[in-house]
Amino acid sequence: MKKIAVLGYGVVGSGVVELFYKNKEKIEKNTGKELDVKYILDLREFPGDPYADKVVHDINVILDDPEVGYVAECMGGVNPAFQFVSSCLKAGKSVSTSNKQLVAEKGDILLQIAKENDCNFFFEASVGGAIPIIRPLHTCLAGNDISAAAGILNGTTNFILEKMFCDKMGFEEALKLAQELGYAERDPSADVDGADACRKVCILASLIFGKHVYPDSVYTKGIRDITLEDVSLAEAMGGAVKLIGCTKRLNDGRILSTVMPMFVPEDSLISHVDGVFNAVMVWGDGFDKTMFYGRGAGKLPTASAVLGDIIDCAKADHTVTSHEWVLDENTDFIAGIDAFCVPRFYRTDSCTADVYESAAKAAGVTVENTTEGGCIVSCCDNKTADSFANALKASGVSVMSQIPVMAD
Amino acid sequence: MKKIAVLGYGVVGSGVVELFYKNKEKIEKNTGKELDVKYILDLREFPGDPYADKVVHDINVILDDPEVGYVAECMGGVNPAFQFVSSCLKAGKSVSTSNKQLVAEKGDILLQIAKENDCNFFFEASVGGAIPIIRPLHTCLAGNDISAAAGILNGTTNFILEKMFCDKMGFEEALKLAQELGYAERDPSADVDGADACRKVCILASLIFGKHVYPDSVYTKGIRDITLEDVSLAEAMGGAVKLIGCTKRLNDGRILSTVMPMFVPEDSLISHVDGVFNAVMVWGDGFDKTMFYGRGAGKLPTASAVLGDIIDCAKADHTVTSHEWVLDENTDFIAGIDAFCVPRFYRTDSCTADVYESAAKAAGVTVENTTEGGCIVSCCDNKTADSFANALKASGVSVMSQIPVMAD
Repeated sequence: MKKIAVLGYGVVGSGVVELFYKNKEKIEKNTGKELDVKYILDLREFPGDPYADKVVHDINVILDDPEVGYVAECMGGVNPAFQFVSSCLKAGKSVSTSNKQLVAEKGDILLQIAKENDCNFFFEASVGGAIPIIRPLHTCLAGNDISAAAGILNGTTNFILEKMFCDKMGFEEALKLAQELGYAERDPSADVDGADACRKVCILASLIFGKHVYPDSVYTKGIRDITLEDVSLAEAMGGAVKLIGCTKRLNDGRILSTVMPMFVPEDSLISHVDGVFNAVMVWGDGFDKTMFYGRGAGKLPTASAVLGDIIDCAKADHTVTSHEWVLDENTDFIAGIDAFCVPRFYRTDSCTADVYESAAKAAGVTVENTTEGGCIVSCCDNKTADSFANALKASGVSVMSQIPVMAD
Repeated sequence: MKKIAVLGYGVVGSGVVELFYKNKEKIEKNTGKELDVKYILDLREFPGDPYADKVVHDINVILDDPEVGYVAECMGGVNPAFQFVSSCLKAGKSVSTSNKQLVAEKGDILLQIAKENDCNFFFEASVGGAIPIIRPLHTCLAGNDISAAAGILNGTTNFILEKMFCDKMGFEEALKLAQELGYAERDPSADVDGADACRKVCILASLIFGKHVYPDSVYTKGIRDITLEDVSLAEAMGGAVKLIGCTKRLNDGRILSTVMPMFVPEDSLISHVDGVFNAVMVWGDGFDKTMFYGRGAGKLPTASAVLGDIIDCAKADHTVTSHEWVLDENTDFIAGIDAFCVPRFYRTDSCTADVYESAAKAAGVTVENTTEGGCIVSCCDNKTADSFANALKASGVSVMSQIPVMAD
């Protein structure tokens, strides 16, 4: 019987242990194997915990035990997670992690070590929490040429934007509520400024396009500048403002990855994803488009994804099924934000359709939609988008916001 | 080098061959193996087709060739598909099928044969076309106790209902348009009367609950009775009418499976799934709920799912990763429609809120929402739902439609 070790007994780690024992019989039936959690690694003691006797404080206990075949890394952060995971893989133990920072920064290296040691490195929980997205990308959809993925990758900001949209709360008030409900940290910057979504974009981009995309290659802008007025105008124009993480292959073959607030038209399913839920739309040549939706965070949802990986490890045994990507030192394959070309949504003070039209003509774009104090213009790059704003200003119109539009 | 044989060179089979050669390099990189299509089995000849030289007419050519490791069954129907697939599995060749009828009627037997012969029987394409749903259920979500799945499993009827909803077409007119666009057959009954969705519900139910659920265990009702007035009233009451296939485990442990038109409130993502797209929502203890959305039919979308299976076969080699379910001759685990308990949507002629309230009181339900000529009452079984309708009739109110409400 191969056994499981769980690294880190915090929210996610304890969820993995809880869900495993709740569904042990079902899991063993599915894998056709007896399974058990043998060790829980944590610096702390957990007196009174039903699994307190499994707690160890030294990673070597796990590394040296040949009975441990599968490791769930739920510690977070790069250090010492990277050393621990590397060592486990080198000892031939397959690893599943929920640690997006680890995958975004060290995924290429860990996948390589796993391959060399005939075991798997899985990270389904690192993007979209419980949502099956990583495995479908490298199995179910693997017969396709995938060209893009985009969606809501951070539940905290989606909750805040929904409160602004539905309950007409201001940003600060909605953030305070998210903090009270435990959806946002006391320092909310990783969520609100986009770093969390950025890491998930890196993982999706690396997996889809086969080359490691680092966080600093992703243009990242958070939601702090989004106002209640922006959100209300978006509603009036038939859409919603969402924080969208996106990676796509441009016509010239380069990869453009972004995290930014976008206007999402209501005919896209993404615009209807509410609360702390996440959703990722993926585009490819055979399947056209497909969307994955679910809980992006939380104890049991994240545990669900980690356990799914462990089950796959147990079934696959030493068949290495994980995908890999490589490090390309030459970063010419990364496109900069100057290559970003989408329609744009503008919020202005009072302005007639005529004035929008002449500014559009001056900037070389087409007005696609107008309403009181707002318009949407056709696909353009940032420079052209600024030209349009400047042309409006030259006509005496104030431009309060300029938000890119997500294309479906 | 293991080779692929494709059974049936119709729409799906030719899509598999086309997509394979389009993305051959990518697929070989993913699997780490050289792959090629060696045979295409069809009764017809295909002069001028680029792969005409691969066409054979005798299944034994494929069965007797040890080089063939993977078989894509795209013939449809139970005979001779069942014989061919059985023989391939007995010869140790893993099979992927897009044939929902085959899986719904013979899935348990074929999974057993696959297991005995150390190979895989996969059927990702049989539910939801391109949508990754089968594999996520038995891998990513396998750490959970899954309690229900429900959604839009037939694109033709969803297209018709959308045309009624958005373009105010009558049922007959929308059906005619679907036929003109090639979405519906000349004899549309398999789609319109629910048999197609029923087969997909059988597959989902069998996979999730581990016992084979046959089509005659699924209460099945199509969309022929849905009128433009029903669809318009649904819109006025904040929802849409969709043909919903559903399977769920009741509190007493029995499985209730249904296909029927349902009122879907707009706060469910399912209500926003338009056109020929499919979507399946799944509920479980760890992940809460997750939804899968994409193209449910068509040449390349279906081929995408078949190829994904073949890729998984190639990666897994002789590790048997497919899930299995058993035949339980005792059908006590199947609940009848008398156990069906959901809120209900009624379309009536002019009626005051007071009259709805007193009829509800008489029937023992609660009125949850009313509008001009319509109301929604709380969860009840069919008998109570009829009592409410009868109480309305006794007050002189005509009841034109009674549609169950999908709970999220």
